[in-house]
Amino acid sequence: MANNKITKRSEDFAKWYTDVVMAAHLASYTNVKGCIAIEPNGYAIWEQMQSVLDKEFKKLGHVNVQMPLLISESMLNKEKDLVEGFAPEVAWVTIGGQKELEERFCIRPTSETLFCDYYKDHVSSYKDLPKLYNQWCNVLRWEKETRPFLRSREFLWQEGHTIHATKEDAENETRRMLEVYYNFFHDYLAIPSIKGRKTEKEKFAGAEYTLTNEALMYNGYTLQSATSHYFGQVFSKAYDVKFTNKNNELEYVYQTSWGTATRNIGALIMVHGDDNGLVLPPKIAPKKVVIIPIGDDDKVTSLSNKFNEELNAKDITTYIDNSDKSPGFKFAEAEVNGIPVRIEVGKRDLENNTITIARRDTGEKYTESADIDIVEYISKLLDTIQNDMLKRATKRRDELTFEAHNMDDIKKILETQPGYIHADFCGDTACEEKIKEIKGCKSRCIVDEDLVDGKCVCCGKDAKYHVIWGIQY
Amino acid sequence: MANNKITKRSEDFAKWYTDVVMAAHLASYTNVKGCIAIEPNGYAIWEQMQSVLDKEFKKLGHVNVQMPLLISESMLNKEKDLVEGFAPEVAWVTIGGQKELEERFCIRPTSETLFCDYYKDHVSSYKDLPKLYNQWCNVLRWEKETRPFLRSREFLWQEGHTIHATKEDAENETRRMLEVYYNFFHDYLAIPSIKGRKTEKEKFAGAEYTLTNEALMYNGYTLQSATSHYFGQVFSKAYDVKFTNKNNELEYVYQTSWGTATRNIGALIMVHGDDNGLVLPPKIAPKKVVIIPIGDDDKVTSLSNKFNEELNAKDITTYIDNSDKSPGFKFAEAEVNGIPVRIEVGKRDLENNTITIARRDTGEKYTESADIDIVEYISKLLDTIQNDMLKRATKRRDELTFEAHNMDDIKKILETQPGYIHADFCGDTACEEKIKEIKGCKSRCIVDEDLVDGKCVCCGKDAKYHVIWGIQY
Repeated sequence: MANNKITKRSEDFAKWYTDVVMAAHLASYTNVKGCIAIEPNGYAIWEQMQSVLDKEFKKLGHVNVQMPLLISESMLNKEKDLVEGFAPEVAWVTIGGQKELEERFCIRPTSETLFCDYYKDHVSSYKDLPKLYNQWCNVLRWEKETRPFLRSREFLWQEGHTIHATKEDAENETRRMLEVYYNFFHDYLAIPSIKGRKTEKEKFAGAEYTLTNEALMYNGYTLQSATSHYFGQVFSKAYDVKFTNKNNELEYVYQTSWGTATRNIGALIMVHGDDNGLVLPPKIAPKKVVIIPIGDDDKVTSLSNKFNEELNAKDITTYIDNSDKSPGFKFAEAEVNGIPVRIEVGKRDLENNTITIARRDTGEKYTESADIDIVEYISKLLDTIQNDMLKRATKRRDELTFEAHNMDDIKKILETQPGYIHADFCGDTACEEKIKEIKGCKSRCIVDEDLVDGKCVCCGKDAKYHVIWGIQY
Repeated sequence: MANNKITKRSEDFAKWYTDVVMAAHLASYTNVKGCIAIEPNGYAIWEQMQSVLDKEFKKLGHVNVQMPLLISESMLNKEKDLVEGFAPEVAWVTIGGQKELEERFCIRPTSETLFCDYYKDHVSSYKDLPKLYNQWCNVLRWEKETRPFLRSREFLWQEGHTIHATKEDAENETRRMLEVYYNFFHDYLAIPSIKGRKTEKEKFAGAEYTLTNEALMYNGYTLQSATSHYFGQVFSKAYDVKFTNKNNELEYVYQTSWGTATRNIGALIMVHGDDNGLVLPPKIAPKKVVIIPIGDDDKVTSLSNKFNEELNAKDITTYIDNSDKSPGFKFAEAEVNGIPVRIEVGKRDLENNTITIARRDTGEKYTESADIDIVEYISKLLDTIQNDMLKRATKRRDELTFEAHNMDDIKKILETQPGYIHADFCGDTACEEKIKEIKGCKSRCIVDEDLVDGKCVCCGKDAKYHVIWGIQY
């Protein structure tokens, strides 16, 4: 059902967001607090993302595995930073088969411990390395405030886990996987993200460092959309994962992990959506084209079928809306669902041998001859839409990118229009805490660019890092 | 690593089974009791199964969704048969975010309740029906005795859930999905299964009836490998899922669910495996062909590469084993992993312009010209292997199919060689209980064939059903 009750984006962005989630049937609330049901339209987008990323991972040599859902408390407790980081937000299973368990299990909030436990029995020599694993699964974190896709107690994701014989190999892996995410966002989601390194305060619990892919939403809030962690030997020491190196010495393995999640669906909505609902980049849209026949007529039917067959034969996923709703209703429904292109095949238009083609992203309509090479035309149009969406998102991001030289600048920017704030930073967590007092502004990432001022935006002392700051989801 | 320590199948079938699981790197044990890690070789088989079934489901109009992992106790309690059936084996989350929860949640053992909760808000008219959903996910049942793939606390599966406007539609769906499973087993897994209906005692908790796909393992034990349940209005009444029918009356929806799981990997092992390890039917094998170059030689390398490219270009997944292991070791490794076809490209053979091709299923070796059309040859050979494997499994099943006329017959059969036992049954659960006393023999399914004797094999009274009995995994 199309839903016309979408709040205007300019009126109330948060409400607009959940309205689009519901109206486009991406997800719905459930009786389980903080957990959503991912509906067919939402899940189909996730399947597209999975398909692209899975191919990419496999191309680079990763293989899929499946570790258990549960982690015993003693296993979790072996790496103290990880425990401290995740303990406040895990869910504990204490009863199984009607009996109080001797040892409780948490539902995995992430699987480093499980992989370490696995590595231990599967690696003995440098010849066994690297091991490049990936896992598609659900994880659970007992969040207090939740929002569909962006932050929910349970979410779906992939977590890559690799071990290597040298620091260099592991660090290369950490960087190369960040690159994979960055390109995925750029090439498929039409989202120009920013790559960088997390500060000590914001890095993953237990990691030596965390690389991150940060995306800017239409309202200027930022979304941490993929991360890649270098663990060095932190976990391998805690879990005793050793191998015999080339010099025949026992050494701890070097480890990475990297992940991205269903929150990317939230990013798609908030970067590209508009007052009429979802707008999907063609390359990630599960259905690229809808054909809407108008008027009961043989010519209309046969041309619709012809287009449908020709497009699907070339893997341009297309469907005909043959339901008994009105054309206006069908238009609205395809719009709210974000279908990139609509082809109207109308009885009256066909009297002039024309059809109408409409773009979802701009709303533009083109009158074309009914005899066009539909595959060639639509292929080109989808490419144009994909490129235009990336351009618009990049323009918006650039408009919402600011520079701050002192705390007042940050305050003014965030009071007027949040966005990416470039500012230098001394590296002291105390300064980060102070900056956070301004509307919860957090460091997003350290970027490899020249310093802005050379002085920390907070304390004025010598800066070490050029950092991008912002308000996060 | 190839593992030569596989127990002989004839010596100890149970040990042989776990040896194959480990030696072929399909799964390994974890620190979480009763939960396995599915290793790359095992997960790749599951991905093949998913890919085939997912396409099939979508072709029939099903769409994928994802419901929560957790079910609140009050929600679970709404349907009493389901609760009674599953309560003994669920795991309860009682602590979340460091707090004792007001209401505990179980980890889904199956998702009927979650789907019912979802349906309630998504259906109002007959025009909204049918709803055809499927979900790929993990479920958890706190089993006491576990065995890799066959019975583990957590397992991966798909669960289809559908609702319909009429009894007839729902019953058709129940039957058609059983057919999908049956064909999947027959056409892809090369396993000739038996279709039938579960007795009242063995049906799914809460179902009006359960259809089942039963497969016979090499040792004569049976495996319930897929089920399809007709719920009628049992759940829709318990969860209040109503719609307005064509006569404008409020009516409860008619419901089905159906599923199959990673235990199918166990079936593949136990139907087709041998003393050298796994034997995979080509249609489900993630890798169909291994090329093993023998001798360091340009001709060997270039021909190996040529074959590899040509086969992969035609989607016959092939890899070259270029590791520095000995040819004998490589042969053994490919064998234990069940790769259907091995191509040996040897320096000495090439002097006579020949290559050697070996079948995994029979061990037969063929000397062929190095100039053969490799794609045509291998395509044909893979078809032959697939057909032969089905034939052998059918022959074995037929050899292990017996008829019993009284309790002594059942006893004798099970003491000599277990298998499918055809015998008539009055329908009385008391008789089923008595039969179960013979080595745990259970009814597998009621089949639509003529009665054997017309008298119940247990009590001798008039029989109602022709039933297949056996020892189950």
